[in-house]
Amino acid sequence: MTVDWIAVDWGTTHMRLWLMTRDGQVLDARNSDRGMGTLAPQNYEAVLLALCEDALGTKPVPVIICGMAGARQGWAEAPYASVPCAPPDAHSALRVPTQDKRLQVHILPGVSQRTPADVMRGEETQIKGLVATQSDFDGVACLPGTHTKWAHLSAGEIVSFQTFMTGEMFALLSQQSVLRHSVSSTGWDESAFAAAVDDAMGRPQAVAAKLFGLRAEALLGGLEGAVARARLSGLLIGIELAASKPYWLGQQVAVIGAAASADAYQAALTAQGVPVLRLDPTEMTLAGLRAAHAELEHQ
Amino acid sequence: MTVDWIAVDWGTTHMRLWLMTRDGQVLDARNSDRGMGTLAPQNYEAVLLALCEDALGTKPVPVIICGMAGARQGWAEAPYASVPCAPPDAHSALRVPTQDKRLQVHILPGVSQRTPADVMRGEETQIKGLVATQSDFDGVACLPGTHTKWAHLSAGEIVSFQTFMTGEMFALLSQQSVLRHSVSSTGWDESAFAAAVDDAMGRPQAVAAKLFGLRAEALLGGLEGAVARARLSGLLIGIELAASKPYWLGQQVAVIGAAASADAYQAALTAQGVPVLRLDPTEMTLAGLRAAHAELEHQ
Repeated sequence: MTVDWIAVDWGTTHMRLWLMTRDGQVLDARNSDRGMGTLAPQNYEAVLLALCEDALGTKPVPVIICGMAGARQGWAEAPYASVPCAPPDAHSALRVPTQDKRLQVHILPGVSQRTPADVMRGEETQIKGLVATQSDFDGVACLPGTHTKWAHLSAGEIVSFQTFMTGEMFALLSQQSVLRHSVSSTGWDESAFAAAVDDAMGRPQAVAAKLFGLRAEALLGGLEGAVARARLSGLLIGIELAASKPYWLGQQVAVIGAAASADAYQAALTAQGVPVLRLDPTEMTLAGLRAAHAELEHQ
Repeated sequence: MTVDWIAVDWGTTHMRLWLMTRDGQVLDARNSDRGMGTLAPQNYEAVLLALCEDALGTKPVPVIICGMAGARQGWAEAPYASVPCAPPDAHSALRVPTQDKRLQVHILPGVSQRTPADVMRGEETQIKGLVATQSDFDGVACLPGTHTKWAHLSAGEIVSFQTFMTGEMFALLSQQSVLRHSVSSTGWDESAFAAAVDDAMGRPQAVAAKLFGLRAEALLGGLEGAVARARLSGLLIGIELAASKPYWLGQQVAVIGAAASADAYQAALTAQGVPVLRLDPTEMTLAGLRAAHAELEHQ
């Protein structure tokens, strides 16, 4: 096995690592739950080495990292690029010194926006993958997740973006609030979801009024947990779509996210007549890191 | 000390108990953190006895309880009264048998509403206190808390009501979400609060768009934690006021809640030109339980 370089997506709760060949093939994929949230700066190198040392020879290997490892509380702070800008390239990556000289660590910067204030770390690399693989794409990227990002793209640049805490709100409300008694952890109801999206888009304040109703209807009317789950998701995605309308109205939208949440966004956008291009989030991350590696090679 | 009866407000996380004289004076106030959430049905009597046994003589004493002790997961289920209805009186209370025959336990029912589905347990007794003490009041009650309740009152009856999860959302977002890094646990900024209420009332979807902005502005612009706290509260109360407008518009509003949150609601309502009557929540609970005791006496 000849590893030519290493691709890493280092998030808050997890990290994923791919051993790569020169021509961008994946030799092996590995992962760890040692996310940024669990690590002090001096711990990163050991976590990285433990996952890849068996694949290292004697020569130095570039390690290209995106995500929260570059945050202020991460391994080392990789300053943000500011919109409008192309997704940061390898030349602007932060070179982090290591004790093991076989590791040549490069952390890609995140992207920030002054007004309205916003930041991303990791999604810019998925957008880089989108730009690299869909060269004719001109539209809007939607990246559902804990913090969903919407980004206006034009000529390969991020023009503006906006973050919504929809995924985190759904997790908190369904698992930690009083609604946890009424919202099941699995199951779905497509028509309940669609109706809740419509409700919230038409009257965004309905979200505030209807959340406790999920609990009350379960107590009084035996509302099913799966229906409550779909309705809660629909209310939260609906108010997000009401607020993100300047992003998606009249645009083609590339939805880049894990299956369950991307399915929900796709359904809601399709119902609004928005053409959706679904892209795999891991493939986009890898494509973005591959593009960064190519930039490094041509340095 | 001659205890004539005992008043109890038994909530999800706490219980409060007052030793009362025949004429409604408080001899002593006691409390416990053994709320409904921590208790199985067979544990309630012991918790109650531990707090009041020193005050019991040989004769039976009425114990009048409101709140979550009457929930399905509580001591014993006291069925809901349905709106439109007066706050439930002592004759509809659930008589719960006890091993210690000196305790005559009565649990007051909650109130439910079929459409839109809603429930309350405890607040109906504060409303009973409002009706008992402000006989000329005809308007709307707003009871800020973990789950804020709005109730239309007319001729001593609850005509309709609506619950908002604003308090719980504020706690989850400020303490458990990514915003915990940016929102301080104390401090306030009145103008930031007022501006956020206006924002959210004018464009309710702004709430979805602006939450993560609190984090981003702290990272990029050094937003102060106290300002972020007031702004988060303003966004959540603002979307609640947008949704509860049919309750408060053109009405007098009695705000019954703990100081900090009642202050915020009062400020937001006053800015909308709504006349506010502030009432102490403990006094209203006690007044409601006193009224129930009087009903029991005249049984």
